[in-house]
Amino acid sequence: MAWEKIAEDKKARIEASIPPEWRLQSAPTEISVMDYPKKSGIMTAEEVAITESSATDLVAKMAKGQLTSVAVTTAFCKRAALATQLTNCTLEFFPEMALARAKELDESFKKTGKVVGPLHGLPISLKDQFRIKGLETSMGYVAWVGKVDKVDSVLVTLLLKAGAVFYVKTSVPQSLMVCETINNVIGRTVNPRNKNWSCGGSSGGEGAMVAFRGGIIGVGTDIGGSIRVPSAFNFLYGLRPSHGRLPYAKMANSMEGQETVHSVCGPLTHSVKDMRLFVTSVLAEEPWKYDPKVVPLPWRQSEADAIKTKLSSGGLTIGYYDCDGVVLPHPPILRGVDTVISTLKAAGHDVFQWTPYKHDYANKIINGIYAGDGGADIFNTIKESGEPAIPNFADLINPSLPKIDMNELWDVQLQKWAYQCEYLEQFRLAEETLGKEIDAIVAPITPTAAIRHNQFKYYGYASAINLLDFTSVVVPVTWADKNVDKKKEGYKALSGIDEAVQAECEFSIPDDPEAYDGAPVAVQILGRRLTEERIMAIAEEIGRLLGNEITP
Amino acid sequence: MAWEKIAEDKKARIEASIPPEWRLQSAPTEISVMDYPKKSGIMTAEEVAITESSATDLVAKMAKGQLTSVAVTTAFCKRAALATQLTNCTLEFFPEMALARAKELDESFKKTGKVVGPLHGLPISLKDQFRIKGLETSMGYVAWVGKVDKVDSVLVTLLLKAGAVFYVKTSVPQSLMVCETINNVIGRTVNPRNKNWSCGGSSGGEGAMVAFRGGIIGVGTDIGGSIRVPSAFNFLYGLRPSHGRLPYAKMANSMEGQETVHSVCGPLTHSVKDMRLFVTSVLAEEPWKYDPKVVPLPWRQSEADAIKTKLSSGGLTIGYYDCDGVVLPHPPILRGVDTVISTLKAAGHDVFQWTPYKHDYANKIINGIYAGDGGADIFNTIKESGEPAIPNFADLINPSLPKIDMNELWDVQLQKWAYQCEYLEQFRLAEETLGKEIDAIVAPITPTAAIRHNQFKYYGYASAINLLDFTSVVVPVTWADKNVDKKKEGYKALSGIDEAVQAECEFSIPDDPEAYDGAPVAVQILGRRLTEERIMAIAEEIGRLLGNEITP
Repeated sequence: MAWEKIAEDKKARIEASIPPEWRLQSAPTEISVMDYPKKSGIMTAEEVAITESSATDLVAKMAKGQLTSVAVTTAFCKRAALATQLTNCTLEFFPEMALARAKELDESFKKTGKVVGPLHGLPISLKDQFRIKGLETSMGYVAWVGKVDKVDSVLVTLLLKAGAVFYVKTSVPQSLMVCETINNVIGRTVNPRNKNWSCGGSSGGEGAMVAFRGGIIGVGTDIGGSIRVPSAFNFLYGLRPSHGRLPYAKMANSMEGQETVHSVCGPLTHSVKDMRLFVTSVLAEEPWKYDPKVVPLPWRQSEADAIKTKLSSGGLTIGYYDCDGVVLPHPPILRGVDTVISTLKAAGHDVFQWTPYKHDYANKIINGIYAGDGGADIFNTIKESGEPAIPNFADLINPSLPKIDMNELWDVQLQKWAYQCEYLEQFRLAEETLGKEIDAIVAPITPTAAIRHNQFKYYGYASAINLLDFTSVVVPVTWADKNVDKKKEGYKALSGIDEAVQAECEFSIPDDPEAYDGAPVAVQILGRRLTEERIMAIAEEIGRLLGNEITP
Repeated sequence: MAWEKIAEDKKARIEASIPPEWRLQSAPTEISVMDYPKKSGIMTAEEVAITESSATDLVAKMAKGQLTSVAVTTAFCKRAALATQLTNCTLEFFPEMALARAKELDESFKKTGKVVGPLHGLPISLKDQFRIKGLETSMGYVAWVGKVDKVDSVLVTLLLKAGAVFYVKTSVPQSLMVCETINNVIGRTVNPRNKNWSCGGSSGGEGAMVAFRGGIIGVGTDIGGSIRVPSAFNFLYGLRPSHGRLPYAKMANSMEGQETVHSVCGPLTHSVKDMRLFVTSVLAEEPWKYDPKVVPLPWRQSEADAIKTKLSSGGLTIGYYDCDGVVLPHPPILRGVDTVISTLKAAGHDVFQWTPYKHDYANKIINGIYAGDGGADIFNTIKESGEPAIPNFADLINPSLPKIDMNELWDVQLQKWAYQCEYLEQFRLAEETLGKEIDAIVAPITPTAAIRHNQFKYYGYASAINLLDFTSVVVPVTWADKNVDKKKEGYKALSGIDEAVQAECEFSIPDDPEAYDGAPVAVQILGRRLTEERIMAIAEEIGRLLGNEITP
């Protein structure tokens, strides 16, 4: 079958999965669809309220019998149906299966008076990379459409044990190796705040879905920014845990088996509170007994408490950088970092400038790893159906690069390790100078606010952190502002890639000078490997200080 | 320079590093050199007593000022000099540097009344894979002789911070990829209990040195049995921690940068008590702040206590296997496993038979990984000097195998991961059936007792565990006994390799039927990844029950 026909057929099946009563009468013309649910007539006020609640509150209410999973699941299914139609963020939608599961959970609760786990009854949306028995995981590849999964990914297994309800799997870019979301199966996913902006990628479907509140906790993956960029572009919190914290076994993937830099799973949420609910719930299932790559590290409340103690005593010690020496972030991002740092300072914390250590070198290494097989794995999958490569594709996977050989790989792995060691040394030296522990580093996650389509060019702020395998939590900060974020005149680009990035400067686009007004601006909070508890606690405090921690 | 000349020169330098007063007057003719120190006239009675003490006691005495580091270091230097001459176990010997360090530590103690760390003043011997600034790390390669190190390995840095004294680096087989110890630099290292037996490998120099008590805690590495086999062949305890527990950064290695199966560092000791001293001391230095591959997992006393609680209440649940389905262990090893299991049973613990899950498959995978570059790295290093390959070499690195390519490697890595997941599933299924947690599995570590030279043939009992990355502690059990360990008649070999292994059966060698009488017999105690605290506690209890935990 021609690839176009396969894609058509898949799109028709997605459309058919939306019950008629949840379908839009007409496509809205507004640039933002954020307020559509309230005025759609499809959702009741109670359903809107449920979807605008927090996951933490919802599970608490379900555990007290004040809400049923069927009610909660119905609300999210409806809103997800709207998100699907308005942002094109969905690859699999299965409300019937979800409602059957919700009913079962409600009946179990009615019978036993007990929840099956900490996520009892809660709908969780998944990037279309997670396998659920009986469903497809096409992952944006036309060649994989129609292949039905026979196993659950380990994280799916554990979330089910914790009581979650699955109802939707969201779109990704073909191959996953791009920070926007476009594929030849369903086309492009757009940002619900502005259809001209990217929702980010590769977990862009999650970004759009959760921002629109068609999901409350979304689960993505990140090997070069794929959780963090969609979080940033959709004003969400996002966790890229270090490798080995959350289970990845039995996921679909491009370049499966590539272990030089690991992709990791993590949540996109509206609050650190919900992020913590997710992480603690998964860890309570002892994922290391299912996936050998997971470190047997239960949730360490003592680590979170260590930060709380600092907050109530001497304060935090926070490093920051606003430029990695390769690409200067645009004015809204520079202002974002500055906002966070001045807010921390004003709250009595100790901040200091961190010198990014050879990030250009880090990115050279990681780009070589991404292209380690000369793109063979990805291009073979694309060729299988005959579909073309998406735009931007060669940014990360350059098909003209030759496959590296085993001894070259070992050299690269050694360079990576040596670089990681040197970075840790930078920490130790700085801590010696400061005479105290560094609690976190605040940094840009992208050089721009949420960007227009096909304009995502520089991955370095995200991917250097993947090479280091540092824990990173994205915190939404502010919005690009046409009246404030003026382009720096006479700026001399740091590099070729900097020049390309500066060319798309927020409020200097001749034919559309207001194109970026109101675009989400975020930062990432970084910590050494496996410091999730501490970094989440710090991200929560920063969110609280900024007033961005959404607590309905 | 011809490689023979380089080796000659290196040997002369090693010889010259032994002060004249520590040199043997004549080579002993006995097959065992174990009782030589007492009768050598070189060591005083007090020095003998120091070297026959435990590390734990020595550091306690030094911390109380009852012993000086100079006295302790002198004693071990003397005994190491004897071990060097009697077993040929040394590649670097530097007593002057050691005594200078010891003196410094003594002076610091005198001045401050405080120890610099938990290992204050304690001599620790290192496999010649650890780098110490200013010394050589030839690692048994002629090509590397004479290259002076400019950095310390991270573990060396941390042991120094903890107060250790270094004085010797011990021999390894050329390339490290063999479980005997022979190289073209100094030749073969022999077992101090019987010069016809192998000391094991690749940390065989450590095995011989520590067995002879020229060292009290020796540090080796293990990627396919290299800590465990020398421990077993020298009646020592040996810890192969899981990858990520102890730091490996800045070590010399063959196939450096190979990360599909990680080599790990670990101690060889006379007791679990000393093993714990080593591990707790290293972890107290926060190795994860130096080596990013180390998991931030301090010593978890709660995990060790969980085992103690079980010992004082319901008892342990221990699985065991005595055959992996590929090679049947020889009678002494079968008896060794049986001894441990009946002892545990008699002590009221619950034991059950564990079915080794596809160990042949595991070994096929790991052998492919060892040979991933078609031996290019190792053979290039050998060729560099022109030295020949050692015997047995092709057992693990088959130079006729082609280098695998990147996509093949990813497939292998995926197979490894899937296999590891399946093995964890076996644990979960067994735990479901048992209705309780499995605490450990008892298994052979080699199919034979300490073996004659050039007879080590089957790595599978060790290497399957490396593929799984399970924590393993070797426990010495008993001795091969010519009157008990009779060959099973009419046995039909399970495989070609089994046939080869059975051909060297302990007490059926026509021209030397007593060749193996008294050869050390050991087992390994296995636990899932990163379960060092629990497995060490169980190993300690087994040693206690067997009466093999040496507590002077």
